[in-house]
Amino acid sequence: MKMRKGVRFFGVLWLSVIVCSPIAVAGLPADSIARVSDAMRCEGLRSLHAYVLLDRLLRESGARLSGSAGAAKAVALTQTMMQEEGFSSVHAESVMVPRWIRGRVERCTMVLPSGTSRSLSIAALGGSIGTPKRGVAAGVIEVHSFDELARRAEEARGKIVFFNRPMDPTLVNTFAAYGGAVDQRAHGAVAASRFGAVAVLVRSMTLLHDDAPHTGMMSYADSVTKIPAGALSIVAAEALSQQLQLHPDLRVKLALDCATMPDVPSANVVGEIKGWEHPEEVIVVGGHLDSWDKGIGAHDDGAGCMQAIEVLRLFQKAGITPRRTIRAVMFMNEENGVRGGLGYVADHRRASERHIALIESDRGGFVPLGFSVQADSAVVERVRRWSAVLASVGAGAIEQGHAGTDVSPMVETGVPGFGLVPESQRYFDVHHSANDTIDKVNPRELELGAIAEAILCYLLSEEGLN
Amino acid sequence: MKMRKGVRFFGVLWLSVIVCSPIAVAGLPADSIARVSDAMRCEGLRSLHAYVLLDRLLRESGARLSGSAGAAKAVALTQTMMQEEGFSSVHAESVMVPRWIRGRVERCTMVLPSGTSRSLSIAALGGSIGTPKRGVAAGVIEVHSFDELARRAEEARGKIVFFNRPMDPTLVNTFAAYGGAVDQRAHGAVAASRFGAVAVLVRSMTLLHDDAPHTGMMSYADSVTKIPAGALSIVAAEALSQQLQLHPDLRVKLALDCATMPDVPSANVVGEIKGWEHPEEVIVVGGHLDSWDKGIGAHDDGAGCMQAIEVLRLFQKAGITPRRTIRAVMFMNEENGVRGGLGYVADHRRASERHIALIESDRGGFVPLGFSVQADSAVVERVRRWSAVLASVGAGAIEQGHAGTDVSPMVETGVPGFGLVPESQRYFDVHHSANDTIDKVNPRELELGAIAEAILCYLLSEEGLN
Repeated sequence: MKMRKGVRFFGVLWLSVIVCSPIAVAGLPADSIARVSDAMRCEGLRSLHAYVLLDRLLRESGARLSGSAGAAKAVALTQTMMQEEGFSSVHAESVMVPRWIRGRVERCTMVLPSGTSRSLSIAALGGSIGTPKRGVAAGVIEVHSFDELARRAEEARGKIVFFNRPMDPTLVNTFAAYGGAVDQRAHGAVAASRFGAVAVLVRSMTLLHDDAPHTGMMSYADSVTKIPAGALSIVAAEALSQQLQLHPDLRVKLALDCATMPDVPSANVVGEIKGWEHPEEVIVVGGHLDSWDKGIGAHDDGAGCMQAIEVLRLFQKAGITPRRTIRAVMFMNEENGVRGGLGYVADHRRASERHIALIESDRGGFVPLGFSVQADSAVVERVRRWSAVLASVGAGAIEQGHAGTDVSPMVETGVPGFGLVPESQRYFDVHHSANDTIDKVNPRELELGAIAEAILCYLLSEEGLN
Repeated sequence: MKMRKGVRFFGVLWLSVIVCSPIAVAGLPADSIARVSDAMRCEGLRSLHAYVLLDRLLRESGARLSGSAGAAKAVALTQTMMQEEGFSSVHAESVMVPRWIRGRVERCTMVLPSGTSRSLSIAALGGSIGTPKRGVAAGVIEVHSFDELARRAEEARGKIVFFNRPMDPTLVNTFAAYGGAVDQRAHGAVAASRFGAVAVLVRSMTLLHDDAPHTGMMSYADSVTKIPAGALSIVAAEALSQQLQLHPDLRVKLALDCATMPDVPSANVVGEIKGWEHPEEVIVVGGHLDSWDKGIGAHDDGAGCMQAIEVLRLFQKAGITPRRTIRAVMFMNEENGVRGGLGYVADHRRASERHIALIESDRGGFVPLGFSVQADSAVVERVRRWSAVLASVGAGAIEQGHAGTDVSPMVETGVPGFGLVPESQRYFDVHHSANDTIDKVNPRELELGAIAEAILCYLLSEEGLN
């Protein structure tokens, strides 16, 4: 008990420090903004409640691939969580989702001309077809770009094409490095199949040198024969590349029994705090509830979903009823279909609502640096005036850019979108792999992201964007 | 090999992006600054060499408490490292250091009135005397401030005083939270002894809820009886506090056999790249080589030392001979005496040199945000003009403030000091505890700090501060 008194004492000291700093924001008086952002920060950093929620989500749901039992559990659980927090209008909004299953067989073996063989760590890419039951065995050509593949088209026929261009480690922003390499994963199978390849292997999209394969979505084209596609771990990719230098005629045996099943019903999960002045005007804060199946989607994107619930809880704890409705949305199926994002816009409930803004957190639960604003320059400038307030939790960097995949369908209709931008160095260490577990999440970093979103929701609700 | 080609291809792409961005800096042409900072960033993020160095330091030296065998190994090893890198004037500069030894006995037991006892995780504070061999057994009073202790002075007589004010979790900057609590560790023994206490226990200075005690320096006053002092883990501090609520008359048995031995010889380690134009003008970049003995000082401050070596290596790899001398200094004995920092200033070699600036990294090897500049406002404004360049690696935030403990003795003579400011959320999870090990260090985050320091060194060397 005495300890708590100590904490309160310090909270008060800090409050006075904040209130003394001039934070100039047009509209609301600076002291009221400071009081609210302070209250949210203090409650958040004392309770670290986003982490408590995330731990529960991960323990009770596990991995949450669209259409899986884990995803269904998460749909039920997040409704329970939001009901327990006392949010309004907690409900699920049905969407049909694709159901891709990994199956039980994932084997990749490199066989040298001497007969020596070595197992390579592999994960089927999401959406891939399986191999025939006996597997595929073929020679391999290693390429680093679609141009190189086109130049060596003749060599590809009957072979396994191995895309091995690494993410560029020299980029500070690891999302830029991901963006510069992920074409291989997304479109490699179509490109290789056009030239008669029988399968593709793709170097994992990560900067970490380890043996965990990093999966992710790939796509087919209707007019091109579908061929199986898998991600090799970095260790496996480098081993294969080295052996290809020595033995260009080595062979790889690949066996996958993944498959795409018929669509199944699932849902977005919604809960809110009704606005007192304009209940029909909605600010969405969300993440995606589905995950890949190798880890348990702690950073991607359990973090973003639990931060959204935490945002609403911070409003409640700060005793604030906002002018406009603040709505937490757990979008389903970001990873392989975006059916949740599309379904949210199409739902009949939207007819009586007007969306002011949508915020998405889907870049990991790391310390927040700012927001990426998907809107015209006037809106971006408007938001920049809030930089000093957001900087009180480290999130003052406001840049024009992509908001998030789930909110895109509505943002593309002209509603301003905001993507929480956290520090990115560690994200691709865990992304889409078995590494994406709760022990990689720092409770304070996760919470600061939620607090930054809560402060932005408050400013959007009370001041609007006009 | 093909993989390396891929990397090079991307490096070139990025270079063109950077060269296209206007980075306005007075003095040097923007394109030359961009070329150099680019070259340093690309080499650093490709090689992640600071981490390679740190891993070697930690494996070969282990913990490096001043006067210990580990510290002596580190003095020899860092000379070897700098010689292997081909630096100039690699040498050790002798300093005498205090030698405090932890001993083998560290026991703290809580005994309830029922006779039930429970062991509490404890670490002697650096500089503490030991207990008598039979230990100290006494009742306990828990306090949260020196004011509270003074009000309850009568209760303290013959007791163990337990300082249990937590670091304030609501502060975003964890160093501010540390600064608001560490008085208990530093001055608790003197304050308690004045009122007749027989020992002090201090809640560990951390925001992590775990059972590892976090040690650190404490001090005595000549006029006040010395009493033993230990840090309880957070788990232990909370258990003791809870039981004190139920059983105010519980007793604690404390046994420590730590002791302060006579001073022993040790050294700062120095290596440099000679300036071509003004070799006598020196820019120091450093960290401290000593560590506490519970972990192995990965973040505190193996990170800062290895970053300093990496800074010079980045100059070499970029093919730059600077105008002024860039000197890496591994300061000895920051943790319990600052003899290295004091000795560096007093060394006879300084007579023929003029120091332009000193940079210290001693806040952990996390992702850099900027620099804390200890100099007059004109210098701070001058440095702010470099913000855009430093922001290319995330380190653009320039604030006036403390530079670092080791560089303080020279900075206080009027030479501008710079402290690298990394993101602080995780630092006190590991600080001064068994948690401070290599697995807590992210190679990219560590390297980005070194690159930020290297770019700052380049700007200081080529442009100066006038």
